[in-house]
Amino acid sequence: MPGGSQLRVTIWNENVHERTDKSVMRIYPEGMHGAIAAGLRRELGATASIRFATLEEPEHGLTEEVLSETDVLTWWGHKAHDQVTDEVVGRVHARVLEGMGIVALHSAHYSKIFRRLMGTTCALRWRSAEGGERELVWTVNPAHPIAEGVPQPIVIPHHEMYGEFFDIPVPDDLVFISSFEGGEVFRSGCCYYRGAGRAVYFSPGDQEFPVYHQPEIQRVIANCVRWCASGAMANDAPSSRTGGVRRDWFLEGS
Amino acid sequence: MPGGSQLRVTIWNENVHERTDKSVMRIYPEGMHGAIAAGLRRELGATASIRFATLEEPEHGLTEEVLSETDVLTWWGHKAHDQVTDEVVGRVHARVLEGMGIVALHSAHYSKIFRRLMGTTCALRWRSAEGGERELVWTVNPAHPIAEGVPQPIVIPHHEMYGEFFDIPVPDDLVFISSFEGGEVFRSGCCYYRGAGRAVYFSPGDQEFPVYHQPEIQRVIANCVRWCASGAMANDAPSSRTGGVRRDWFLEGS
Amino acid sequence: MPGGSQLRVTIWNENVHERTDKSVMRIYPEGMHGAIAAGLRRELGATASIRFATLEEPEHGLTEEVLSETDVLTWWGHKAHDQVTDEVVGRVHARVLEGMGIVALHSAHYSKIFRRLMGTTCALRWRSAEGGERELVWTVNPAHPIAEGVPQPIVIPHHEMYGEFFDIPVPDDLVFISSFEGGEVFRSGCCYYRGAGRAVYFSPGDQEFPVYHQPEIQRVIANCVRWCASGAMANDAPSSRTGGVRRDWFLEGS
Amino acid sequence: MPGGSQLRVTIWNENVHERTDKSVMRIYPEGMHGAIAAGLRRELGATASIRFATLEEPEHGLTEEVLSETDVLTWWGHKAHDQVTDEVVGRVHARVLEGMGIVALHSAHYSKIFRRLMGTTCALRWRSAEGGERELVWTVNPAHPIAEGVPQPIVIPHHEMYGEFFDIPVPDDLVFISSFEGGEVFRSGCCYYRGAGRAVYFSPGDQEFPVYHQPEIQRVIANCVRWCASGAMANDAPSSRTGGVRRDWFLEGS
Repeated sequence: MPGGSQLRVTIWNENVHERTDKSVMRIYPEGMHGAIAAGLRRELGATASIRFATLEEPEHGLTEEVLSETDVLTWWGHKAHDQVTDEVVGRVHARVLEGMGIVALHSAHYSKIFRRLMGTTCALRWRSAEGGERELVWTVNPAHPIAEGVPQPIVIPHHEMYGEFFDIPVPDDLVFISSFEGGEVFRSGCCYYRGAGRAVYFSPGDQEFPVYHQPEIQRVIANCVRWCASGAMANDAPSSRTGGVRRDWFLEGS
Repeated sequence: MPGGSQLRVTIWNENVHERTDKSVMRIYPEGMHGAIAAGLRRELGATASIRFATLEEPEHGLTEEVLSETDVLTWWGHKAHDQVTDEVVGRVHARVLEGMGIVALHSAHYSKIFRRLMGTTCALRWRSAEGGERELVWTVNPAHPIAEGVPQPIVIPHHEMYGEFFDIPVPDDLVFISSFEGGEVFRSGCCYYRGAGRAVYFSPGDQEFPVYHQPEIQRVIANCVRWCASGAMANDAPSSRTGGVRRDWFLEGS
Repeated sequence: MPGGSQLRVTIWNENVHERTDKSVMRIYPEGMHGAIAAGLRRELGATASIRFATLEEPEHGLTEEVLSETDVLTWWGHKAHDQVTDEVVGRVHARVLEGMGIVALHSAHYSKIFRRLMGTTCALRWRSAEGGERELVWTVNPAHPIAEGVPQPIVIPHHEMYGEFFDIPVPDDLVFISSFEGGEVFRSGCCYYRGAGRAVYFSPGDQEFPVYHQPEIQRVIANCVRWCASGAMANDAPSSRTGGVRRDWFLEGS
Repeated sequence: MPGGSQLRVTIWNENVHERTDKSVMRIYPEGMHGAIAAGLRRELGATASIRFATLEEPEHGLTEEVLSETDVLTWWGHKAHDQVTDEVVGRVHARVLEGMGIVALHSAHYSKIFRRLMGTTCALRWRSAEGGERELVWTVNPAHPIAEGVPQPIVIPHHEMYGEFFDIPVPDDLVFISSFEGGEVFRSGCCYYRGAGRAVYFSPGDQEFPVYHQPEIQRVIANCVRWCASGAMANDAPSSRTGGVRRDWFLEGS
């Protein structure tokens, strides 16, 4: 983001479960986007401005204009990945490569935009037991910005199990690894550089559990948003002392 | 590949320049695939079997059957990336994630299959000067298998310039970096793990220069082919001592 | 190793527990080195030659001559890290950087040689409960050579707990992650490139449990040994087409 | 650093050339530390406080107290690496692993502290030609914080050549690659996570050339300082919802 000014966050939510499943409505009466926003407001305060976008809006709320005014986009989707149009996916993809950050949450591992950015299936092992099971989120890179101020481990009392093998590219920074009661492990906090942009995948946050109300989880998401907020585009001009630097090249494919 | 048996290589070539450009015909009378094959035969001998596939064949020579019998696929394309059907691209992509190796050569950085695997634009900076310019290929990870027996540096007397920023994901293993007479640098040897498969990008090899006849380049390509030749699919069954391991999960998206 | 010839493995063992603790003698009557060797023989057969070296021998069995004839060294130590002389540590360190592979096993995370190679404390979280606890070893990079033919997960019925944060540099390849009954996770299979050599840390193998008799563990160790067996030293001469390559530089510090 | 408060930087300089070599005195009348400080002041302004420490001071100016009040330490040394005491090296090493950032500049690649953190020889190829030669510094990861606002490429008109193979561990983030007129390449901007701390190596800055007066280089160093400024120590306490988390483990070696 331009130095000093506010970090502009757009919270995207599929927002289907919250309108159709009573159990989800009870947990997230303001929608998961509402809980995520509450966490960001507490953690980032006036340094960030927040807007929402949802599936049902025209262009899913992600017009060229909205994206051009977004420094970091968070993404939650599950039931309706296929209803996101390829046009919007392509637009978001291009914006990430130009420098917009993206934070993919939980079941967004299987969203079109995340799979496009990763180039793999993003399939995983999962189990949705009644009442969930305990997840422990361990920090394996305490020097990384997204782990700042995070307890060791974060305890999520009840959650859906996500396990390995998780078919993603090797993370550029692997920060969190979770375990589940069944003994499974999962790379739950993964950072990537893509083009001039940055992407994070953070797995906690199933719609059936109040994970996004948990302060430690909110803290991690705020850390991710901060980490993703890239600088400007790469400056593709040479420094002023250009003596002898050739400029007779082309960009793009050859 | 199954231990002990032959490594099965399929050399894919667009094979357009060789049939239309006189300058290319002179350098590669047997096609670039012919020169690549000659290098692999010298380096790998009887440990590998080689077949060819080209754009003009039905399904571009890459049927399900051919791919199922291929341990490593090498890919050269330039002029006709768009003529490769999405169906074949999807098929190759799936096979790589299942364990087939792929070696993308030179202008294949902009092929559909490489861009699908990478998730980025794969754009770069380039200059095609008359007569080319000297490229030096430096090893920055001498412990890596694809650098085995490679001189420091490899000298390519005349070549097209490829320069940074090259919009690829951060390589899992960066092995070679090239410099050009204009002062540009390029990550010319990049290794990736994708699903159960491995991918390499190796940049030398423009159609206008006899790069694939150069023994050091042939050596690197043979090293890449060997490195890519993955084991079998990941075994997704637990070890025999299974006491207490839950098996009540699902694979794929949640 | 020189192409085609045998892979020369030296199995180094502190060999103190096996001579002083009855419980260990019962599990490892031939020493842990004996069990490790049995596994390598089954997996590598005639492709490898094996010798032993132990702490009590002169120069701990690791003379210049022995090291110069070793392609891969495996290392197990626990009680007597401090008794390994700095001279021998320096010698092993130099040989690794020159191209010898090293496989550090279990409590060798705290050996002088591993800490020297890593540059960090290599401290971890641990618990040595009576009877141990179940460890599950999950593959998170099925395309990696050290995961070839390995079940998902490996089940170790009883083992000492090792947990995060494990103070190592970020692995160049992270292949295995373990979970324990207490819910802890641990990066249990970590690969590194160092100079012209390669190093692996693989954590299973406490002296109080018959882990090195377990075939799946033996398979992983054999995979590690194969992966570590580097080519020759990097060739620091340019290719034959040297037109214009400057050779007026120095190596080492400036 | 504690959120909101000033970033506390200590600029360490060997400060030998500046007092003995007339050519260096002319370029750096205030010492290289003076030029580095001027750059940081321009870039970081009131967000940072700066102090100096040099070799000749008691404990080289790096007492426990100074280090405990330092968020980021920059290091320049060349002639007198051996005069830095092992005690001070051990103290700095421990502080980095606890969370202090360190920026190693130019010939500091061969300093005791950098080699201790890396675990390798840190040797390289170099050439010190009369008048130097042009170095171009290319960004290969435009999304990385240390590349923010940096021209593509940075042109250093006259500099000492540093070339590959540079015997360092694979960087966790490789951000800059340089080329030299002789055709050599060099990984000139390398980031590492070590323990709870972060380290950067940035190669420009030979004493014989006015590199540290160049605004683009000052910008990069400021970016590095900001990137290195870690949060607090990892919090090794679990989250408040601790139901069932075992706490019966030990830290350190087993």
